[in-house]
Amino acid sequence: MVGAEISQLIALLAKIPGLGPRSAKRAALHLMKKRDAHLVPLISAMQEVLNTVEVCPLCGNLDTVSPCAICSDVKREGNKLCIVADVADLWALERAGSFRGKYQVLGGLLSALDGVSPDDLGVEALLDRVKKDGVTEVILALPVTVEGQTTSHYLADMLADFKDVEVYMLAQGIPVGGELDYLDDGTIATAFKAKKKL
Amino acid sequence: MVGAEISQLIALLAKIPGLGPRSAKRAALHLMKKRDAHLVPLISAMQEVLNTVEVCPLCGNLDTVSPCAICSDVKREGNKLCIVADVADLWALERAGSFRGKYQVLGGLLSALDGVSPDDLGVEALLDRVKKDGVTEVILALPVTVEGQTTSHYLADMLADFKDVEVYMLAQGIPVGGELDYLDDGTIATAFKAKKKL
Repeated sequence: MVGAEISQLIALLAKIPGLGPRSAKRAALHLMKKRDAHLVPLISAMQEVLNTVEVCPLCGNLDTVSPCAICSDVKREGNKLCIVADVADLWALERAGSFRGKYQVLGGLLSALDGVSPDDLGVEALLDRVKKDGVTEVILALPVTVEGQTTSHYLADMLADFKDVEVYMLAQGIPVGGELDYLDDGTIATAFKAKKKL
Repeated sequence: MVGAEISQLIALLAKIPGLGPRSAKRAALHLMKKRDAHLVPLISAMQEVLNTVEVCPLCGNLDTVSPCAICSDVKREGNKLCIVADVADLWALERAGSFRGKYQVLGGLLSALDGVSPDDLGVEALLDRVKKDGVTEVILALPVTVEGQTTSHYLADMLADFKDVEVYMLAQGIPVGGELDYLDDGTIATAFKAKKKL
């Protein structure tokens, strides 16, 4: 019943993470009703991003300038390198604002199951960068999952050869605002193991 | 930190029903990563819909042909008119496939609070259509809410003057697959009141 053009739009909206087939239909109807207020600006914002945003050749961040604003910021400490799995993680860390060094986006995590190898993550280039940029501190800010931890250990092993480089990972434990009753057993066990003396 | 173009895209994505600020960010990242596979086709699907889809001048449906495919389908019974609040409702009824007449989309419901009057819903034009098209059966398929029922009663009153027109509303009761334990009291009360003899 619905025309091919509308079906096509619904199908593409449904592939956006966070939208499913039913909410995509609702989204399509909303956009068709708010043509001038929403659909037209959204098309031009997408077109603008398509034309201007590129992957930073140095760190893998997404930005409208190349190299990205973080890589070209001379006020940031070039000897500190924070390694993240994804651009979303980089944004989350920047939002927190507690790191003033540079980043390297892996674009994934080592996974035997999905066939992701060190080559896919550009580990070679990463090690080159550590050497060339005189990095003295590497922070592995990878997710606390099996794959994240496997990747962390692999990178820590590779970086062990660099005598001047200190390798860190983010502290694990109870999150701020975390109520013990709602936390999973793994988090509680980790927090116990890493308990601090007051 | 995020460039103006990306912020703008996130802000517009966040206004899509079903997406919030956080999922809009995730959606924007996804689209920027899947440029050719998703962003480019999505832009052109939106552009296509923008160029081709219009509001049917007869019933208020959205379609690429004008009048819409339903209004111009001579096989559908023109003497039966189903009145719905929104295009989404029309689509839902078409999906169920139990009605082979024509539709009229009100585009809203009477509401003193939101200042929606019969004029805003085009009631005058609706009554004209009933007269002109020789409609003999009107089905009020409006939501079972205070505003939906107010609108139903108002339209039923208006249509009472048409001696040849029978006015119906959809049956109310337990939905198919509805477990009594999970249903609200209003639905159960309605189902009891309208109980059927076996």
